[in-house]
Amino acid sequence: MQYFESDYLEGAHPLILQRLLETNMEKAPGYGLDKYSQSAREKIRKACNCPQAEIHFMVGGTQTNATVIDSLLSSYEGVLAADSGHINVHEAGAIEAGGHKVLALPHTYGKISAEAVETYINTFNCDANNEHMVKPGLVYVSHPTEYGTLYTKTELKRLSAVCKRHGMPLFLDGARLGYGLMAEDTDVTLEVIADNCEVFYIGGTKVGALFGEAVVITRPNLIPHFFTIIKQHGALLAKGRLLGIQFDTLFTDDLYKQISKHAIDMAKKLKEGFMEKGYRLYFESPTNQQFVVLENKEMERLAKNVSFGFWENLDSNHTVVRFATSWATQERDIEKLLACL
Amino acid sequence: MQYFESDYLEGAHPLILQRLLETNMEKAPGYGLDKYSQSAREKIRKACNCPQAEIHFMVGGTQTNATVIDSLLSSYEGVLAADSGHINVHEAGAIEAGGHKVLALPHTYGKISAEAVETYINTFNCDANNEHMVKPGLVYVSHPTEYGTLYTKTELKRLSAVCKRHGMPLFLDGARLGYGLMAEDTDVTLEVIADNCEVFYIGGTKVGALFGEAVVITRPNLIPHFFTIIKQHGALLAKGRLLGIQFDTLFTDDLYKQISKHAIDMAKKLKEGFMEKGYRLYFESPTNQQFVVLENKEMERLAKNVSFGFWENLDSNHTVVRFATSWATQERDIEKLLACL
Amino acid sequence: MQYFESDYLEGAHPLILQRLLETNMEKAPGYGLDKYSQSAREKIRKACNCPQAEIHFMVGGTQTNATVIDSLLSSYEGVLAADSGHINVHEAGAIEAGGHKVLALPHTYGKISAEAVETYINTFNCDANNEHMVKPGLVYVSHPTEYGTLYTKTELKRLSAVCKRHGMPLFLDGARLGYGLMAEDTDVTLEVIADNCEVFYIGGTKVGALFGEAVVITRPNLIPHFFTIIKQHGALLAKGRLLGIQFDTLFTDDLYKQISKHAIDMAKKLKEGFMEKGYRLYFESPTNQQFVVLENKEMERLAKNVSFGFWENLDSNHTVVRFATSWATQERDIEKLLACL
Amino acid sequence: MQYFESDYLEGAHPLILQRLLETNMEKAPGYGLDKYSQSAREKIRKACNCPQAEIHFMVGGTQTNATVIDSLLSSYEGVLAADSGHINVHEAGAIEAGGHKVLALPHTYGKISAEAVETYINTFNCDANNEHMVKPGLVYVSHPTEYGTLYTKTELKRLSAVCKRHGMPLFLDGARLGYGLMAEDTDVTLEVIADNCEVFYIGGTKVGALFGEAVVITRPNLIPHFFTIIKQHGALLAKGRLLGIQFDTLFTDDLYKQISKHAIDMAKKLKEGFMEKGYRLYFESPTNQQFVVLENKEMERLAKNVSFGFWENLDSNHTVVRFATSWATQERDIEKLLACL
Repeated sequence: MQYFESDYLEGAHPLILQRLLETNMEKAPGYGLDKYSQSAREKIRKACNCPQAEIHFMVGGTQTNATVIDSLLSSYEGVLAADSGHINVHEAGAIEAGGHKVLALPHTYGKISAEAVETYINTFNCDANNEHMVKPGLVYVSHPTEYGTLYTKTELKRLSAVCKRHGMPLFLDGARLGYGLMAEDTDVTLEVIADNCEVFYIGGTKVGALFGEAVVITRPNLIPHFFTIIKQHGALLAKGRLLGIQFDTLFTDDLYKQISKHAIDMAKKLKEGFMEKGYRLYFESPTNQQFVVLENKEMERLAKNVSFGFWENLDSNHTVVRFATSWATQERDIEKLLACL
Repeated sequence: MQYFESDYLEGAHPLILQRLLETNMEKAPGYGLDKYSQSAREKIRKACNCPQAEIHFMVGGTQTNATVIDSLLSSYEGVLAADSGHINVHEAGAIEAGGHKVLALPHTYGKISAEAVETYINTFNCDANNEHMVKPGLVYVSHPTEYGTLYTKTELKRLSAVCKRHGMPLFLDGARLGYGLMAEDTDVTLEVIADNCEVFYIGGTKVGALFGEAVVITRPNLIPHFFTIIKQHGALLAKGRLLGIQFDTLFTDDLYKQISKHAIDMAKKLKEGFMEKGYRLYFESPTNQQFVVLENKEMERLAKNVSFGFWENLDSNHTVVRFATSWATQERDIEKLLACL
Repeated sequence: MQYFESDYLEGAHPLILQRLLETNMEKAPGYGLDKYSQSAREKIRKACNCPQAEIHFMVGGTQTNATVIDSLLSSYEGVLAADSGHINVHEAGAIEAGGHKVLALPHTYGKISAEAVETYINTFNCDANNEHMVKPGLVYVSHPTEYGTLYTKTELKRLSAVCKRHGMPLFLDGARLGYGLMAEDTDVTLEVIADNCEVFYIGGTKVGALFGEAVVITRPNLIPHFFTIIKQHGALLAKGRLLGIQFDTLFTDDLYKQISKHAIDMAKKLKEGFMEKGYRLYFESPTNQQFVVLENKEMERLAKNVSFGFWENLDSNHTVVRFATSWATQERDIEKLLACL
Repeated sequence: MQYFESDYLEGAHPLILQRLLETNMEKAPGYGLDKYSQSAREKIRKACNCPQAEIHFMVGGTQTNATVIDSLLSSYEGVLAADSGHINVHEAGAIEAGGHKVLALPHTYGKISAEAVETYINTFNCDANNEHMVKPGLVYVSHPTEYGTLYTKTELKRLSAVCKRHGMPLFLDGARLGYGLMAEDTDVTLEVIADNCEVFYIGGTKVGALFGEAVVITRPNLIPHFFTIIKQHGALLAKGRLLGIQFDTLFTDDLYKQISKHAIDMAKKLKEGFMEKGYRLYFESPTNQQFVVLENKEMERLAKNVSFGFWENLDSNHTVVRFATSWATQERDIEKLLACL
């Protein structure tokens, strides 16, 4: 069986486990006050060229989204997001459980545009009844998106501009950020993100860590008492060192980039393999998630030897399925997959 | 100036004020335990032919929607509603503030169909990731809808059937219910609603009362501890007699129907007046809200003498506006309005 | 039967009903934008000598407490209140339903002291683990308290000072405010309250209105988007004129004070009647609620002809019961009550 | 420097790290569906002699408390807990953020009694106003308590009986459960806990794991859709295998008991050392937390070489401080500490 259904099938990059092992019996204060967390923060600040950034570590994506969004919104505000956004579809209502509406915008392969945001806000502002409506208070984007697509630097800048014009923070969900940063032809770097987003996070769970997301607040004091907010959301890890050590390792010697690049290479090989054999891609994805159109019979046959993600029915005979590579995918995994076609 | 922007411009039907006056100095227990509330409940049960119904009175629509929906949903459930539904647009996020997602469905002039509900649920049930998603737990419809349109008896029965099939209650927002019941050609009566909805409410605020909505729970014990839930939502009126007296009056000698019928007659006169003068209706509304297409210049001119509601831009030269009649509209109001055209 | 169990047994002062009647068929915009609400606001500003005050009207006490407290607290903050406070005991958890902890302080007949607040905050500030704890963010007092007792001007000033010192607003629940203002020997006026509290409300429900509480925000812009917050809490009355007319009437020709004074006179007569007959007061209450110690047998006998509130068991043979007078109590009601002893 | 301020200073027991290492590159499904989680569940069921138990793994204590309590309560219910309980003091209001009131009971060194619970409920049931109050819906106890004390089997049985009598679940927070199970003279075993509690959890974070709490639901189907509830609370770990592997290791060859016993031995040695040197214990604690009374000067001197937890001021000259041992404490750590006295 070949496994391509997600990018969190394995444990962690071996270097991370090694460092957990080396430091295991050291005594360290809890809750992120340890020296490893401090070191990781310093390295991330440098990587983002954002010396003033506040950095907090959390365990998982839904937790991070719910905690950050709740902390950035007033009670009467909602969050603008793509209709297809993770927070709108696959977080079991965690945002609403925190009291906030997700204001869904139409998307193009997972992306929303500055124009759509601007139009939403202008329409809201012109509505004579807007005091009876949820005020848009934040824009959420994911990069890569749930479709594996990427914003360009220009697109991010324009989103940031519309947000600034309307006094709203821009929050970027980077659960798969490494795979975005190392895509070919992207001009979006960590520095570009830090320049344009008030808050974003660097995903570890899907990019080489056992677990963990590094939240970067690029404007100091944007979120007062964030530590307590994290605690209230049940998102404060007692042994914060575990997060510190992992991110410290990922941000040493460019490990985060290097393993992300590997996943991109594997995705390229996979994509090319499919195309050579005459398969059709649903659309062009530059990152570690590839979406392929399969005839339903072919899909059923393939499912016996390969695991992949169901994406959507294309028509009565075809289905779109997702193959995900990761830091841990090996070249021979791809070869075995292609051999099954 | 002629006022047609809403159906809550005046106080209450004179008979209601008279009874408030007559009973004013009587001493009555609070919180709906008084004899007037008991009497009103009895009359409503009869009018619905639903002797087992539990009936609670609340003050306003948003409050009622938020309290009822919160009481019917488990924490992991959301409410299916038309994209255009009041709870999705004009309640400032009250449902989400209670922790629940509004699962928006496409609508046709404010109505959703049993097919759309069925499709949503089947798609949800078939989704391998549905444990990560908000479970649909309730269907919300408004009748009349925000567009003034009405469900037919068959449509309600089919909505009820799909709800029952999937173990979900059907909740009907009747903020303007009287105007629906008295529309020409409708086959939906209070009894039909009580037969098909687990919970619904009979709107008073927009139909002759100072304020007040009568919540009818057609299945006994569907909502344990509803009294405490009402209190927790700040929706328990200390002098519950005020609600009891108002609904007792509205349900004496068919007053509720009679004044609703009057509003329908006035709407018909208004509609015919517009049509005779060559105006175009946006669509055919059978109730007290009429939607007329106006040239923008005409609209601006009219706005100097008549107040109405902005609905939407039709094209660059035309706008859809709303005129609402009510129990209090007088024939000469319509005449004056038509004279302005 | 003589009724003394609460101060909301009747409808409204006749002048209020008369004005509702006179204005009934006028057309007025909704949601508090009408001229009566504007007029009432202006009169209340004058009565408080607080020209910059923002004033909003809501329907009931629990609703007002929940809405105001939610609007004043950040998500990580709680509200300091007497252990016996209405919000801590008798609002069905409305504050917690909004996400906030009530931080209970010991009380003396319903009152908390500036010292207790100061000590709580200092202890909190010195606790090395306070980032794991709920931050006190607001002080709630009721005046009169649930025991009918009153703060002095000095006590309020000291509470205000400790609040200011720690950057917390002081919020005063005035559900029975009239009866406090007109108590003998009090030096607390509306002006004193407006000087010392960031937010307070003037109770109408228990003091002559059908319903209604006037929320006074003494610092402009303290609560951005309060209108939307009110809507979200289901606390926005469609026909806001009803609140405007009631408070406009109550603040015309000193009606609010005059009818409150009457309740105090009646309470005094009641108290003196009990004392003359040798009964013991549980403590000295200066307002419209009187707490009397009854032998249990006497209590049972009395309960056949008089309704009153159970307060607490004093010992195995004695019970404390509450008698409430109001704007509507008549001298002969007291006489009949005393004749039953 | 000697570190005794908490029991989560180190990483994990070496056997756990070894197994994480061995299994690291295996591909496993996420969210707890992996074979290690299944195996761990089976071992825990056996250890509890509760074959029907449902078992879910979460990351930390506050998260677990908030998720479980929210899942067990209706919206109108609160949780009874010791005034000193972790959920009432040190979870930043996580329970209230979920909408529920913590109903605080007086405690004796962290313990509440069946009598106190019974009295609370009877008082509630007899209160004529209880429909305006938060209904007690659940009892929360911690074992060991925050004071390191333990319930006896009889005490747990009596708590369970009062809960059953009133239809409430009993929930036991076992963040330090191992240290309770292995205390000398305790008659409370995992089986006893499973017999008496509807839900409890077995703490890993403080007892040898990197992180993790195993929630045991002893009554099948008590909590429908718990998986989705976990997700909504941001408490679902993507790589659930990490929790499975850790608990599988802890419940292999009695490792959990063995390392817990070691902590108890170390605590005993520490306690005896203090007593031999004439120090006074604040009270007798049978578990890994020991509370010692220190003169303030002695405390300040000691703090230069030893870290410990501040507990409370005893009088103006004395302070109670806490020393915690753990699975990782070494005999020579104790000796060095005692040498500092």
